[in-house]
Formats: sequence, structure tokens, C-alpha cells
Amino acid sequence: MHFASDNSGPVHPRVMAALTAANQGYAASYGADPIMDRVRDRIRETFEAPDAAVYLVATGTAANALILACLTQPWQTVFCARHAHIQEDECAAPEFYSNGAKLTLVDGGDGKMDPDSLRATITAEQSRGVHGVQRGPVSITQATEAGTVYSLDEIRALTSIAKDFGLPVHMDGARFSNALVRLGCSPADMTWRAGIDALSFGGTKNGLMGVEAVVLFDPEKAWEFELRRKRGAHLFSKHRYLSAQMDAYLEDGLWLDLASKANAAADRLSSMLKTLGVQPDHAVQANMVFARWPRATHQRLQDAGAKYYLWSGSLEGADPDEQLSARLVCDWSTQDSSISQFAELFRG
Amino acid sequence: MHFASDNSGPVHPRVMAALTAANQGYAASYGADPIMDRVRDRIRETFEAPDAAVYLVATGTAANALILACLTQPWQTVFCARHAHIQEDECAAPEFYSNGAKLTLVDGGDGKMDPDSLRATITAEQSRGVHGVQRGPVSITQATEAGTVYSLDEIRALTSIAKDFGLPVHMDGARFSNALVRLGCSPADMTWRAGIDALSFGGTKNGLMGVEAVVLFDPEKAWEFELRRKRGAHLFSKHRYLSAQMDAYLEDGLWLDLASKANAAADRLSSMLKTLGVQPDHAVQANMVFARWPRATHQRLQDAGAKYYLWSGSLEGADPDEQLSARLVCDWSTQDSSISQFAELFRG
Amino acid sequence: MHFASDNSGPVHPRVMAALTAANQGYAASYGADPIMDRVRDRIRETFEAPDAAVYLVATGTAANALILACLTQPWQTVFCARHAHIQEDECAAPEFYSNGAKLTLVDGGDGKMDPDSLRATITAEQSRGVHGVQRGPVSITQATEAGTVYSLDEIRALTSIAKDFGLPVHMDGARFSNALVRLGCSPADMTWRAGIDALSFGGTKNGLMGVEAVVLFDPEKAWEFELRRKRGAHLFSKHRYLSAQMDAYLEDGLWLDLASKANAAADRLSSMLKTLGVQPDHAVQANMVFARWPRATHQRLQDAGAKYYLWSGSLEGADPDEQLSARLVCDWSTQDSSISQFAELFRG
Amino acid sequence: MHFASDNSGPVHPRVMAALTAANQGYAASYGADPIMDRVRDRIRETFEAPDAAVYLVATGTAANALILACLTQPWQTVFCARHAHIQEDECAAPEFYSNGAKLTLVDGGDGKMDPDSLRATITAEQSRGVHGVQRGPVSITQATEAGTVYSLDEIRALTSIAKDFGLPVHMDGARFSNALVRLGCSPADMTWRAGIDALSFGGTKNGLMGVEAVVLFDPEKAWEFELRRKRGAHLFSKHRYLSAQMDAYLEDGLWLDLASKANAAADRLSSMLKTLGVQPDHAVQANMVFARWPRATHQRLQDAGAKYYLWSGSLEGADPDEQLSARLVCDWSTQDSSISQFAELFRG
Repeated sequence: MHFASDNSGPVHPRVMAALTAANQGYAASYGADPIMDRVRDRIRETFEAPDAAVYLVATGTAANALILACLTQPWQTVFCARHAHIQEDECAAPEFYSNGAKLTLVDGGDGKMDPDSLRATITAEQSRGVHGVQRGPVSITQATEAGTVYSLDEIRALTSIAKDFGLPVHMDGARFSNALVRLGCSPADMTWRAGIDALSFGGTKNGLMGVEAVVLFDPEKAWEFELRRKRGAHLFSKHRYLSAQMDAYLEDGLWLDLASKANAAADRLSSMLKTLGVQPDHAVQANMVFARWPRATHQRLQDAGAKYYLWSGSLEGADPDEQLSARLVCDWSTQDSSISQFAELFRG
Repeated sequence: MHFASDNSGPVHPRVMAALTAANQGYAASYGADPIMDRVRDRIRETFEAPDAAVYLVATGTAANALILACLTQPWQTVFCARHAHIQEDECAAPEFYSNGAKLTLVDGGDGKMDPDSLRATITAEQSRGVHGVQRGPVSITQATEAGTVYSLDEIRALTSIAKDFGLPVHMDGARFSNALVRLGCSPADMTWRAGIDALSFGGTKNGLMGVEAVVLFDPEKAWEFELRRKRGAHLFSKHRYLSAQMDAYLEDGLWLDLASKANAAADRLSSMLKTLGVQPDHAVQANMVFARWPRATHQRLQDAGAKYYLWSGSLEGADPDEQLSARLVCDWSTQDSSISQFAELFRG
Repeated sequence: MHFASDNSGPVHPRVMAALTAANQGYAASYGADPIMDRVRDRIRETFEAPDAAVYLVATGTAANALILACLTQPWQTVFCARHAHIQEDECAAPEFYSNGAKLTLVDGGDGKMDPDSLRATITAEQSRGVHGVQRGPVSITQATEAGTVYSLDEIRALTSIAKDFGLPVHMDGARFSNALVRLGCSPADMTWRAGIDALSFGGTKNGLMGVEAVVLFDPEKAWEFELRRKRGAHLFSKHRYLSAQMDAYLEDGLWLDLASKANAAADRLSSMLKTLGVQPDHAVQANMVFARWPRATHQRLQDAGAKYYLWSGSLEGADPDEQLSARLVCDWSTQDSSISQFAELFRG
Repeated sequence: MHFASDNSGPVHPRVMAALTAANQGYAASYGADPIMDRVRDRIRETFEAPDAAVYLVATGTAANALILACLTQPWQTVFCARHAHIQEDECAAPEFYSNGAKLTLVDGGDGKMDPDSLRATITAEQSRGVHGVQRGPVSITQATEAGTVYSLDEIRALTSIAKDFGLPVHMDGARFSNALVRLGCSPADMTWRAGIDALSFGGTKNGLMGVEAVVLFDPEKAWEFELRRKRGAHLFSKHRYLSAQMDAYLEDGLWLDLASKANAAADRLSSMLKTLGVQPDHAVQANMVFARWPRATHQRLQDAGAKYYLWSGSLEGADPDEQLSARLVCDWSTQDSSISQFAELFRG
């Protein structure tokens, strides 16, 4: 019953095997390893983007912060959803890497930015000349922190507003694969064809040990990215071990299989909860379920070893009937038995 | 004949085995994994430092830059050797992480800082009140970038000068193990007992995949370090895979064995060169040999597949007899046969 | 009819005379001038704060940003009103000077922070451990950007919440004098006795050429402030000309007289508007009036040479009856005749 | 006998008169004042640079640091003389404003960069790919911190090296006027015609209260400069008082008269010392004299009230005959009588 996070699960065996395979003899360091050449080709092919610049880093925060630093001047502001990972969960890494740019929060439901809010928010910024900050990139999280997925139309609505103002668009794809398999579209459709300029392409939450790809569809900032990566201490010397993970991930569609499994587990979890009378807070479209039930039930579940985060409220509290929100996250390794066991406990 | 770098060699099999062993089921993320508890204990025990704060990051530059940022105010300057890694090989990561502190270069031979130079350089700084930068930490590289090793007396001479000025001392120990087995002293003797306040304890160059420990002998800055690590995007979500590497490294003295092997290979390489009439540029005390021979010989060696960096000059050049300097680096996996083959080629 | 800003008016003649008087012979530079000694004494006496550290800078943004940088770690967030000057009018200078700290916006009416909102907002931050930013200082603007003034009770309500969380409190007093003469209390009552730790004490908007004092009631950060001031390029070499302005400002209560005049002018302007049927948007408590009237009236006023900013909407627009908000600012030099002329034009 | 600094002398009366004249009624703030329009025209005309972007700030460090931030990426290094003001006297403001760029020191005599050293130093940087910092601008101080003046040929030798590497060139002209009147050339000849891209055009050390002009001969970075100026808190609200100073400075060649007077005083001081058997350390080409004489003489001079800085050594010391170096600075207000009095005292 481990639903705490998709980063607490194990690495897929094929990824472990790739690491072992890569561990033969000597290899050029700092990204000049031959496996990286193959990874670059695979990502360009996957995204139908033959000119894209492709890099690997080890954390999602690094991917986001380094990309945003390339797209944002220090006197600009990044537009993002109110509860975006870059706003709430990165200890101001974007501000650090951009030397003090701001983040401007855009309203919307279900973890998304609403297009009208985005347009109004962008319009309102930069009305004060040199006194206010200037408009910078728009950052879209796909899938969102609420476990929902933007449709292609929704993405295009946001990027077309950004383009109206001449602003670049970043996609935080820590759960890119989960969104992609849900939409059933191509990677190109969900990114550059929909107006995305740069992508954090997640792997860690989907079965890798710790690798995220950075995909710059416009390679103009490639060299700047390389310098920022090194300066940020994110260039790995023994880079082949990053390459090997991503290589295995892309081989024979492993990345899609793993995301499909995680999504399917979340669907089962959600269905199970509905049969128990619990409606999820948001549509379950990726690998996360947000839902609420009484404190007493939370207490019973957690006492029995169920692992998940409370998203609102606290177990400490007098009222056993108060509804507290939970976040339940599945990954490729989530077992049906775990869900069944959870359901049994839930019933009490 | 791979002598290019100690970061181009493979990961030790026991480390790979530890990764596989760690890849079972779920584990708390972000450093709360139980393996990290064991690693912390092991490092504290190894260094006889029960109160030390211990953290893991994936790159040596991250370890150095994050520690220095904790020790340095933005208006201070770090004192280091003229060719220190933090000065030449980190794309100004220390300046970035410290928000614009300076580095002041201290002269000395064989990659070391000379104590008299250090005292004179520290004295000269901060003579201009608020107009000049203020004195900050001293950073000592052990083993040095020239493959030499400070004796305990030499370390204490530098740290006692730092203490005279009330300055903290950092040790960049990317090749800490190589120095330690050469000196044959205890880790405590080479660090806090000699006046070191914070250590970058290298693993990557000595058989790990990508892990360096940060050891803050004075834990006062522990929380600040944790925030800087996260903000710098260096906190791993699937942290257990960092922990597992360091755990295997420390188990049964693997780290010392690997360093001893690398040093022994460098010794053999150096002896071989001496028999061929080539004197190394510096005493060979760790796992690196710097030496010079004619361009034509370099050309022949590299044509035959020998991998190493030219440290001065370039293969392009008219004069076949010009002496060009080479850097040859050994690691735990360097084979005797490689050295013999190199010798044969060298003889021509 | 100049109501554009209190920084478009002239310098008071006594300040000009002080500059001329200071322009005799040689004087020690960089703040070591004897006039500064007198200024320091006067400010300490005025604020009944004999230990306060006192500095002069030339812009309000410099005072705010340098103080906040001393009070805020880069991984913290500053709590301020939604439309605070530090949020909207300083091109992210606080973020720059603090190396990327955040600002968290607190709701409230009439330009103020509401105590309940402040408590809730502070509580909500720092619930995510190392992943989120940490709580930093509270910044209170007195008088506010809406021309209102916090009562002593209101200030104390905010500072006591800050103290509950162990957070320091900054007061942006660009219009400190206007607020003080309205409340009729002592400078100490409105600052350190009410829980303020550091003050930007404005002069420029109240008759000086360009001087703001920084008052650190707790002098612990004094030396850090001096280094940040120099490093920020805000330490004047010919400092005596800053000192002379502040000296004249404090002599015989000139600063209070000038603020009283500006406030009285705003009161007259407000009364005049009320007689014309226009109610101000906020209570008029300092030297600013916010009010709204039809576009056509704005057009007529501005065509006739009235100078002021539209605070919402734009003269371009089809509907002549649409209500647009204006900001009218008075200073010590505002003439009754200007107000009468404005009234006449308004009547049409 | 005030020879401490050219920033301890008074403001010229014509500048004071201009401030008084500017202090009439209302004026647009933040640089939109009509006097600034005239200043911009005058500087463009003076420099025969009709397209130059022109701005005013209040300190020389602000001018230097803001310009360098526009010309330098954070991962680059600025090439400058070993004792340049930006290296020694600005508390690392260039590092702060550029978000952590480095300064690389270039050797040379008499306060200058030697062309061969510059070429060798630039060549040596950026040999390490992404690991080392990248080459950034060259910064030339004219007149130098040693009171010497680069000839036009010397400037062109440096700028042509910079151009060979595609690097922009900044001139720190805190004492620009002193150098210009010594060379007797045109402002255009000493700047853009000689390869200078951006200039800090000093006024404060030459009779103003506190104004330096920034001249960007290539206006491409003009808007960036404006944003950096505001964000750095260097945009004055009551800007007309900066404009008025610079306007008076440029009127009827006041700036050249003042510099000529200061230089002439330094010449007289130098001649006087030579008659006393003291040879200056460097050619006296601007308004500063560096020379050395025995400690006992220093003691006698300073006891009698002579104001100047010791440039090497300290009055405390056992040996009365030890030669200690002095820096004597003249400004437009230096009196012949002061020099005679100094000579008398010197003779003892």
C-alpha cells in the first residue's frame, strides 16, 4: 500500500540491466559517451524534431530551473499555475537559477491555468514600464500537479496566448509520459506542434533511477544551456550512466508501457474509491488520485501501514468525521493486491 | 591504455551489486531512506566525528560549490591554489552558488598553496575596508590537481594561518582516498584534527557511479546546506541509489582498496617512465602522472590509441622534438597490461 | 495642477541652502563627513534609539532592497501587501538584492495587509520542509500605496504575528512623515515600540533631492549593510551632500512641516471632490487621493493640463461615461490655486 | 594640503547654480525631464555619436557594474588590469551585478594592461570548453589607477586584440576628462574610434556632486540597461538634479577646464617633488602623483595636517628611513598655496 509518491518506487529491471551493460571498460566522460549519441537520436526521432538540442540531468528541478533560466531574463516573470511544482516544490530554484526572476501565478481549476486568466494576467504585467517586471515565459505542467491532463486544444489555447505576446513556452513534463498515453497522441503533437519551445521530459517518476531529458526544440540556446548546466554543477562526469537509463527507457516503448501501467493503477484505485462512495477531487487522468474522506478513516488506513500524503488538514484534530484530502500516487510497480488491500482497509 | 581521467573508468562491481540490492520495493525519498541512515553512521564513525552533518550529492562541483556557499558571504573571497578545480574547472560554480563571491589565487609549487604565500595573500586582502572584498574561507585540494599530496604538517600549516584570521577551511577531497592511503593516516587526522571544517569527500573518481559526500564537521550550517542543496536542484528524489553507492564504498574498506589500486598503478606508470628516461613533473603521490616528452612520441602514442590529455601545448606544431606535457590518470581498474603496452609503444 | 507624483515637485529652499553651506572646502568621503555624524545623532534622538545604525542612500528602492537583503535569506519569502511598492514598482530589486528570495502577497483592503490574512499566509508557507521556501520578514508600507495609514494598533497586530513566527519586520516608510503627522504619535511609537526592526525613512518624496535614511534599530546587521551598500554601488563618495539634505530635513522639524502641508493639500483636494459629488476610493490619510469619475471628465482635465495618473483604465475607450480611477498626489509645494483651478475644470 | 582624493573636494559653483536653476516647479521624474533631453544631445554631440544611448547614475561603481553586467554573461570573465578599480575598490559589485562572472587580471606596468599580456591571458582562458569560464569583455581604465594615461595607440592595441577575439570593450572613465585633456584628442578619438563600445564617463571626481554618464555607443543594450538600472535601484525619481549637474558640466567646456586645472596642479606637485629630489613612481599624466620618501617625512607631513593616503607600508614601523609610497590627488580646487605649503613642510 505505497501511494506516497512515484519517486519512492523501484527502478525497472530493464533499466538496471542497461546500467550493468554500460559498465564495461572506459567511456568518454561529460556527455561524450556513445550511448548519449544514441539517446539524442532516439529523442529527436521520438519527437520528430531532428534539430532539437537534447541533454540529460538527474533531477526534475534541475531540468526546470535550467530551462527557465535560459528562457527568462532576471527582470522578467514566469507565468505558471498557482500550485505548479516550480512555485511550490523547488525551494525557489527557478528564482536562483534565473538570478531573481519572479513567478506570477495564474488561476484555474484542477491544477491547470485557465486561458482567460492567463491572458488577463499577462496583460496586467508590464504595464509599468521599467518599474515593473517584464513578461517572461509561460510554464505549463503536463500532467498537472492535480493529476489532470491538458487536452491538445487546451495546450494550444495557452501557447497561442503566449505567442500573441511573443513569449516562449516551457512544459514541465515530470509526468509527461502519463499525460501522453492518456491523450494517445504523438510526442510532437503534445509539444512543438502545440507551441511548446522547451520540455523537461521526465524519467525519474516513471521507472528510472534519476534522469530527466531536456529537449530544446529551438537549439539556439543549446550552448548557453550547456554552460548553465556545468555552472549549476549538473554535468555528470560519468555521464554514460545517465545515458544508459534514458536509452533503456526509450527502447521498445518501455517509457510508454510504464506510464500506462501507472495510469491503469490510478484508474483502478479511483474506481475502487467510487464504489466505496468516494468521488475524486479531480478527474483522474494520470497516475494520481486526490480524494477526501473522514479523519477516522485516514487514521485507520495509516495505522495499518498505508503510505500516502494528506493534501489538506492533519491527522491531529478533534473531529473524527472531518473530511481530509489525500493524494494517492501510483507507479509502474503498483500492485493490484495493494489496491485491494487498501479497499479492504477502507471499508473497515 | 586509458589514462584520460579517473571518471572514464567503470563502476566497481560491488557498487553495482549494492544498487541492485537497493532496488527492492519502496523506499522513502529525498534522503529519508534507511540506507542513508547507515551511511551517515558509517561516515561519522570513519571520521570519528559523531556530530558531523553528512549529505550526498552526485557531482564534485556540487559538493564544492554548495559547501563554499555555506562558508562564504557574497562579499568575501575564497583563497585557493592557482590551478584549483574550483578556479579552473567548474565554470564559476562557486561564484554562482555564493552569489558573486571572488576567488583569490595563492601561489605555490606542485599544485599546492605555499603557507607564506597564503599568509601574505590573506593579509593583503581586506586592507580597503568596505571597498574591497572581505576575507573568506581557505579551500585546500587534497590530493592536488598536480597529483601531489599535502603532508599533515603542510595541511596544519595552512589551516593554522586560516585560524589566525578566523577563517573556515574547506577541503576539496575529490581524490581524498588517494591522498589518505598515501599518507597512511586516519581520516580524522587528515581533516578535522588538522583544522578542516568541511569536506567534499569524493567517490565518483574512485569507483562510484556518481556520489560525493559532504561532511560538515561543525553541523551548525546543516539546515542551510539542506536548503541550498534543494534550491540548487541537487536533492535526489530516489536518494536510496546515492546512499547504496556510498554504503558499498565504505563497506569493508572498499574505498581504500580502490584508491590503493589506483595509486599503485600510477606508481608503476611513473617507474616505467623513469626507466625510459622521463622524469615526472611532480612527485607522483596519488593516481596521476604529469610528464613531458617530444611531440613525435605523443603523436605515435595517440595514433596507437593511447588516451590521455596534453597538459601543455598541442599536437599541431612544426617541431617534432618539442617537449609537451601529458597528464596520465589511473583508476582502480587500470591494468598492468595497459601500462606495459604504453611502455612498448613509448619505446617505439 | 501637478498631481502626478510627490517626486516631481521641487526641493525645499532650506535643503538647497544646506547643500550650498556644505559645499565648502574638503570633507572626508564615503560617509565619514562630520555632517553625517550630526545626522546620525539626530535620527537616533528623533527615534529615541541611541543604538540604531543609520545610513543614507539616494533612492527608496535602494533602502528597501538593501534592508530586505539583510533580513532575508535567498531561500526565504517576504510577506507584503498585494500592491506593495516592493512587489510592483521596483523591477524585482528585492529579488535581485536578496539573490532570488520570493515575495508572498497578503490580502487586505485599502492597500493594507489584513492581520488574519497575514497569519494564514505565513502559516501556509513553510509547510513543505526543504521543498518550499522558508518564512522570511514581513514588510509593512506606512503610509500605504493607497494613501491610507495603519493605526498603531494595526501595526502592532501585524508585528505581533510576525513575532509569533520569529520573523523580523521591515517598514517601507517612503511616506513615513505623512503617516506620522496623521497619527500624531512619536517616531518611536510608530516603529520600534510597535515592533518594527528596520525602517526605510523617506525624504525624497517629502522635499529632498534624493535621500532616504536606513534605520536599523537592531544594529547587529550594520556591517553587513555597509558591505551590501558598497557592493550595490550605493555608497556615495561625496557623501556630505546626502548628509546635508537629511540634516536640513531634521532641523527644526522641517520634515514634519512639509508632510503636514502635503497632507493638508490632499485633504483639501478630497473635500473639494466630495463637494463635487466624488467620493474617494479610500480614506485620505496621507498625501494621495484615489477617486473615479467619467472618462470625458478625465479627458477635459488632461487636455487642460492637469497632470495625474490614471490608476485603472485608459483614456482611449468608446464610452465617455465609463468611470476611470485617478491617483492625485500632493506635496509640500502644492498650491491652493492649483486645487481651485482643478475644481473649476472639473465642474466644466 | 588636501590630497586625499578627488572626491573630497567641493562641487564647482556653476554646478551648484545649475541645481538651483533646475529647482523650479514641477518636472517629469525618472529621466523624462527636459534637461535630460539636452544632456543626451550634448553628450551625443560631444562624442560625435548621434545614436549612442546615454544614461546618468550617481556613482562610478554603478556605471561600471551596470555596463559590465550588460556586456558579460554570468559564465564569462572580464579582463582588466591587476589593480583596476573594478577589481579592488568596488567590493565585487561587478560580480554581483553580473550574477557571478569572474575577473581575470592582466599584467602590465604603470597601472596599464600590457597588450602581449592581454593577448596571452585571453588566449589562455576558454581552453577548457564548458569546464572553464568563457571570454568576456575587456575593461580599460583611462586614466589608470596609477595616474597614467594610455595613448591612443595603446588603447587601439588593446581593443584590436579584443576585437580579434570578438570581445566588447568597456572604458572606466572615472577620470576620463583628465586623460582627454592630457592627450589633447577628441572624445570620439579616445572612445568609439579607438574601439571602445561602452563608457563610464566620470563627473563626480571632476567637480560634480555625484553624477556619472553611461554612454553605450552601440544602443542595442539600451533597454536592458534601463531595466538593470531600475532593478539595481539606481534610477533617480527626481532625475532632473542629476541632469542639471551634467548639463552644467558640459556647458562651455567646464568639464575640460576643471580637468585641466586638476592636471596642472598635479604637474606642479610633481615638479616640486622633483626639485626636492623625489622622483614619482609613474609618469604624472592625470591628476595623481605617486611617490615615495622616508617614514619620518611622512610622519612630519601628516602631523602638520597634510591629507593623503599611504599606498604602501604604514606609519607604524621602527625604521624612520624606510621609504613609503604616497598617493597625492589634486582636483580643480587644489590651490597653489597648498602645494607650496606642502613643499615647505617636506623640506622640514
